[in-house]
Amino acid sequence: MSTIFTKIINGELPSYKIFENELIISFLTIEPTQLGHSLVVPKLEIDHWLDVKEPYYSEVFKYGKIIGEAIQLATKAPRVGAEIQGWEVPHFHLHIIPMWGPSDLDLRNAKTRSKEEMKEIQTKIVANLDY
Amino acid sequence: MSTIFTKIINGELPSYKIFENELIISFLTIEPTQLGHSLVVPKLEIDHWLDVKEPYYSEVFKYGKIIGEAIQLATKAPRVGAEIQGWEVPHFHLHIIPMWGPSDLDLRNAKTRSKEEMKEIQTKIVANLDY
Repeated sequence: MSTIFTKIINGELPSYKIFENELIISFLTIEPTQLGHSLVVPKLEIDHWLDVKEPYYSEVFKYGKIIGEAIQLATKAPRVGAEIQGWEVPHFHLHIIPMWGPSDLDLRNAKTRSKEEMKEIQTKIVANLDY
Repeated sequence: MSTIFTKIINGELPSYKIFENELIISFLTIEPTQLGHSLVVPKLEIDHWLDVKEPYYSEVFKYGKIIGEAIQLATKAPRVGAEIQGWEVPHFHLHIIPMWGPSDLDLRNAKTRSKEEMKEIQTKIVANLDY
């Protein structure tokens, strides 16, 4: 059974895509703590980040920064946070989160938003990507 | 005024050091959520991770993984988590945290430990470093 992230990578599930290349994909999480909360996911199904090999590992953090900058421009958040938890989907994903305070990293505060809000922030983030 | 991390880098404050090279330093945080909770800090005083230039930026994540592996071996934690918050010391630091559950990333659960516990886990992590 492939993870939901592999299904997104394979085009079997839709996503609000932010960026994709041959090594990684990034999309809005369906349950953001703040609008713009995105995931960066390597295109191989590895559960624990410590087991992710190069060049996938470095690509996640290289684009994590680029996507973080676009999220900050799109949301006007004072900071951007990042985290690796890994207790839900067994496929490594780096959370990139616009932050107004520490509680924005608390995934218990995550909740779904309207399609309109998701599409609007997706468009703004993509427009601000600079790589 | 230099940050407490710059004072540690300059040897003006002590730390339970894990690793150091010309670009980064890593040490146990004085308020861990779990014993072994460490920070990786670039040797330049930049507040926001999105502003950290190369080669410092990539070095933090390269050694974050190596230190994470050593933390997992030293603590026997089922997973290791990582996060970037940045609301306290204005000097970028990557938290690397042995995790038994999501609450181990919640810095509100941080508390000081005895010198003996800190020295013991420092020694174990350093013994498990493989780079």
